[in-house]
Amino acid sequence: MTPVRIDDPADPRIAGLVSIKERDLTGRHGRFIAEGTVVLRMLAAAHRAGRGIEAEAILLLENRVDGLVDLLADFPATIPVYVASAPVFDAIAGFNMHRGVLALGKRDSAPRLDTLLGGLPAKSMVLAACGISNHDNMGSMFRNAAAFGADAILMDETSCDPMYRKAIRVSVGSVLTVPFAREGSVTALVGRLQADGFAIWGLSPRGQTDLQDIAPSPRTALLVGTEGEGLPETILSSIRTARIRQRPGLDSLNVATATGIALHQVAMINGLI
Amino acid sequence: MTPVRIDDPADPRIAGLVSIKERDLTGRHGRFIAEGTVVLRMLAAAHRAGRGIEAEAILLLENRVDGLVDLLADFPATIPVYVASAPVFDAIAGFNMHRGVLALGKRDSAPRLDTLLGGLPAKSMVLAACGISNHDNMGSMFRNAAAFGADAILMDETSCDPMYRKAIRVSVGSVLTVPFAREGSVTALVGRLQADGFAIWGLSPRGQTDLQDIAPSPRTALLVGTEGEGLPETILSSIRTARIRQRPGLDSLNVATATGIALHQVAMINGLI
Repeated sequence: MTPVRIDDPADPRIAGLVSIKERDLTGRHGRFIAEGTVVLRMLAAAHRAGRGIEAEAILLLENRVDGLVDLLADFPATIPVYVASAPVFDAIAGFNMHRGVLALGKRDSAPRLDTLLGGLPAKSMVLAACGISNHDNMGSMFRNAAAFGADAILMDETSCDPMYRKAIRVSVGSVLTVPFAREGSVTALVGRLQADGFAIWGLSPRGQTDLQDIAPSPRTALLVGTEGEGLPETILSSIRTARIRQRPGLDSLNVATATGIALHQVAMINGLI
Repeated sequence: MTPVRIDDPADPRIAGLVSIKERDLTGRHGRFIAEGTVVLRMLAAAHRAGRGIEAEAILLLENRVDGLVDLLADFPATIPVYVASAPVFDAIAGFNMHRGVLALGKRDSAPRLDTLLGGLPAKSMVLAACGISNHDNMGSMFRNAAAFGADAILMDETSCDPMYRKAIRVSVGSVLTVPFAREGSVTALVGRLQADGFAIWGLSPRGQTDLQDIAPSPRTALLVGTEGEGLPETILSSIRTARIRQRPGLDSLNVATATGIALHQVAMINGLI
């Protein structure tokens, strides 16, 4: 693998990496952007694992190449590696917060909910979410799910796409490793989880059960709602609910933090960590 | 209180609110920016409480005024309220992510560590931090500290300033309510906490004690380190250390999430929540 120097930001070979900040809003055709060394390493692992994720091109700031030789060797030699000076790099990316390490990846369509659920082991823990609209929160939820061993993340169709650049970055690449599906309504999702034998616990400041009192279960689904309103009442009234003890106050915890606290507890209760 | 219309972004009456995005980097003279309805409400409460925080001016997008009449009535009538159209508002602020609600506040110098510690009750829990460089993490740590009833946040001098706009926003105003000090080295901070009878627990992926096995103590300090490297070895070897159980992997939890999980646990252990 010999890096190819790019001197023209309009070079068609790096067209997929042009103006990727805007690409946040338009991710299409299964392409995604991996940013930074840690995510690049996860991309290499995902590519090798052959689970429908592939690297297509790597773009490095010229001064980053020497430090990344080992990591680059983890990619097949057919993946092109481009290098650019800082001005050219910034002109390509359209911003300068990229840490000098970018890659274009391609992902097969996310699995259908049925397929994903059907492939889960008898003992499993999943995170279910509805209406998550913030990419930072989405990325952070994936990072937490990976840390505490969630087998999958299942989202309703109103949740944002975890494959956006910023969500992948905040997840430190966990979006590439934690299986997920995103389809349908939260009502349909809850029904599907119940049919598959999951004990479903909705997280809410008004939850009935203290988080640490959740009963162990071979299959547990933790369900969290949107940043502002939380889970809809129609859902909360149809499942068991848990609360995180906290001081009374106007504002509850951030949804990603609450998810981290709850997954940690549920994983301990079920002996997963 | 009658709102005053601003038509010229260069109007000297709103000079303190000009280009506040850049002000992130240059917060000076004790001024700070409150953004959004929730933070404005916290500012009103802090102003009324008279603990060294004052509102100086409020700037609203014209279509937000009607919905905020009650909140504005919480401020003294002497605080000027300005309104502007969207183009003028954006030209003043220098960006358009302000949600149409901005205020300029002023804070007396943060208390000295000695003063703050000297004023804490016999039974107290504090969060101590060193080298936190990211304003999102800082804001999130304040939000978590408020949620779980920490009496104060104590930072070393290398941590970033919690009074920056984005940290205040992410904290949903908790920076204005949770007492904090930021001075000296982490070594000095640990020494001071020990002298004041705090059981100090350093949070680290290599911690010796499982988080949930931390012993209750009338005074507990949870100490967390920088995003990248965590706590320095010299500190970890001089105090007791705790770890959050998680799956083995390259990347540990985000520092703010880890802080949330740990504060939740320590607050439960000590009967604070």
